[in-house]
Amino acid sequence: MPSNSDFLNLFGDETTTVTLAPGEALFSEGEPGGCMYLVRSGTVRVSTGATVLDQFGAGSILGEMALIDDTPRSATVVAVTDCEISVIDRERFLALIRQTPSFALGVMKVLSHRLREMNRRYRY
Amino acid sequence: MPSNSDFLNLFGDETTTVTLAPGEALFSEGEPGGCMYLVRSGTVRVSTGATVLDQFGAGSILGEMALIDDTPRSATVVAVTDCEISVIDRERFLALIRQTPSFALGVMKVLSHRLREMNRRYRY
Repeated sequence: MPSNSDFLNLFGDETTTVTLAPGEALFSEGEPGGCMYLVRSGTVRVSTGATVLDQFGAGSILGEMALIDDTPRSATVVAVTDCEISVIDRERFLALIRQTPSFALGVMKVLSHRLREMNRRYRY
Repeated sequence: MPSNSDFLNLFGDETTTVTLAPGEALFSEGEPGGCMYLVRSGTVRVSTGATVLDQFGAGSILGEMALIDDTPRSATVVAVTDCEISVIDRERFLALIRQTPSFALGVMKVLSHRLREMNRRYRY
């Protein structure tokens, strides 16, 4: 998995930032998704149905799947602590893939890491 | 998921091709992986442990995760029918990510599709 600082370094202060209080949702399963997110500070919890999948902290990206394949959110993300989260829209996402191969590879690493985690969890 | 013809169009006849007879393994779970593959014709079965995960036909890519995060093969791939399969080494893979954003996005779509399938399968 890419170092959490890789994504933090890539997105400067120019991106729109949202703040969440503990318990507030960033997005919910089934919603359409027009942007991805980067956790700048705090911790969020990712769940699908009644299953908590993971928790993520600063430097983690979230919601990228909805941009990649233009489908609804596959999970719900809720703040566990106070969070600062950058918003990366579709246009910026596609520009980064075109212009910054390390970003494309970083996103692939995140997806690959999640697939391996799912494989490990559900193997037996 | 990207159209199966997208990857077929991207890799011409210049790539190394291997042929497999039914029952022959392309690679096995746990092995180190230095390349990815593109199914040109035939059908392969992907399994992990005793679980069959999926079957893939012409235009499908396989084994890309080992190139992305440099970890051992996460699954075993065996030919179901006679297969022709192109071999794409790490150098070519990284060059494609740098030079062909549609390839990078295509690989992301494959990974995202597989994650959604896993989510759906194991959700309850």
